[in-house]
Amino acid sequence: MILKRVEVIEDDESEIMEAVRRMSNRYDMVVTSGGIGPTHDDITYRSIAKAFNLPLVLHKEAFALMKQLSKPHPNQPNFNWDEDSPALRAKLRMVELPTDASRPLDEQFLFPCKDMWVPVAVVNGNVHILPGVPKLFEKLLDGLTPYILPRLADPEGRGIARVIISTPLPESAVAAYLAELAERVEPKGVKVGSYPRWGKKRNTVTLVGRDKAYLESIAPEVVHYVKGRLVKVEGEDDEDEGAF
Amino acid sequence: MILKRVEVIEDDESEIMEAVRRMSNRYDMVVTSGGIGPTHDDITYRSIAKAFNLPLVLHKEAFALMKQLSKPHPNQPNFNWDEDSPALRAKLRMVELPTDASRPLDEQFLFPCKDMWVPVAVVNGNVHILPGVPKLFEKLLDGLTPYILPRLADPEGRGIARVIISTPLPESAVAAYLAELAERVEPKGVKVGSYPRWGKKRNTVTLVGRDKAYLESIAPEVVHYVKGRLVKVEGEDDEDEGAF
Repeated sequence: MILKRVEVIEDDESEIMEAVRRMSNRYDMVVTSGGIGPTHDDITYRSIAKAFNLPLVLHKEAFALMKQLSKPHPNQPNFNWDEDSPALRAKLRMVELPTDASRPLDEQFLFPCKDMWVPVAVVNGNVHILPGVPKLFEKLLDGLTPYILPRLADPEGRGIARVIISTPLPESAVAAYLAELAERVEPKGVKVGSYPRWGKKRNTVTLVGRDKAYLESIAPEVVHYVKGRLVKVEGEDDEDEGAF
Repeated sequence: MILKRVEVIEDDESEIMEAVRRMSNRYDMVVTSGGIGPTHDDITYRSIAKAFNLPLVLHKEAFALMKQLSKPHPNQPNFNWDEDSPALRAKLRMVELPTDASRPLDEQFLFPCKDMWVPVAVVNGNVHILPGVPKLFEKLLDGLTPYILPRLADPEGRGIARVIISTPLPESAVAAYLAELAERVEPKGVKVGSYPRWGKKRNTVTLVGRDKAYLESIAPEVVHYVKGRLVKVEGEDDEDEGAF
């Protein structure tokens, strides 16, 4: 998968609606993070529903799972799942989900982690709504892997390889060569990157692509022309420069 | 100033064009970071010029400043500013800037830091193009302050105040009160935030606004209803919970 864009926006309905509509139309997969808790500033479900003209509908299975998996909070001793209260209405907001009657329900609501009641609502076929708490976000995103793999152009998920070359030359001295190289290797799916390192004596050149063997076959040529050396991590050969 | 959106995008012409056009139209001020170096993957000037149908024109003063302020690189001993070479052409790419003949030039090219040759090109009246190197980005952004202050709704720049309240209650228990509070204080320009803290015993409620005295006048009420306490920094009162 190629990450095309990251957007950080505030809890503002019109901002969320604009971003989610545009990204849903433009990209294969969109993941949102945050804004799906029980308080007034959690407006993600509502805003995304509005963006696609969908109603919010109580997801009964998610609510049943919430009741089953939630531990009672020590500071909420009188909470009763079966009696209307402000606290119950707040919890219900977390399982009232954008629902499209024209699409199969099991494609709209995923439960990737068996021990979590938090659903992943999938809106407009590709917008995946996840919580912002980092541990939950990561766990659910990992849990989505089996749903996403079959849709990938490279379902084996071999991923991206990267070769890193450290060069003592200034960027302007390697620019012409790298431009020529980038054009030559582009048909092989290789991207050439050049990263200045401010206040350091060596800059970084990268080769990124799916074909690791090909990357490694061109690396010696690049090392030669940029008078560089292969490194595993940017900056690992800084120590021979003396103190700064 | 209210930060409305942060977007992280790749070195892709169509992505840059889409983002910069949309944000220039939608927001008062846009700042870009990165992609203005001498190598082939530095395509920000070119892409933004294309987004607004502008030519790239050599900025002679910036080039003169570059010549004057650049130190010779130890690994580029034969570099000659007065003779055509691939390295000179690479450097020139950094001072060939999107230029709108219909606008005053001194509004399109700012030099906020006297000791830096890097210009801040201002395209379409509000897109400020800055380098990605963090130290340079920060220095130039700070340098823009005098240009931006007169355009602010609050030119004294008193900024935003924040009151932080730690609460032992779960979000669902405070949701109804916070919703009522948020609606009540919204006309006073106050935003109420609620942030769950996963794996911690206390959550965070925030009051954010320009009128610090007003925020402090409502804080005791909020402390009372969420059974909380005022803190300076989120989590500072975690230590009384024992080890996790």
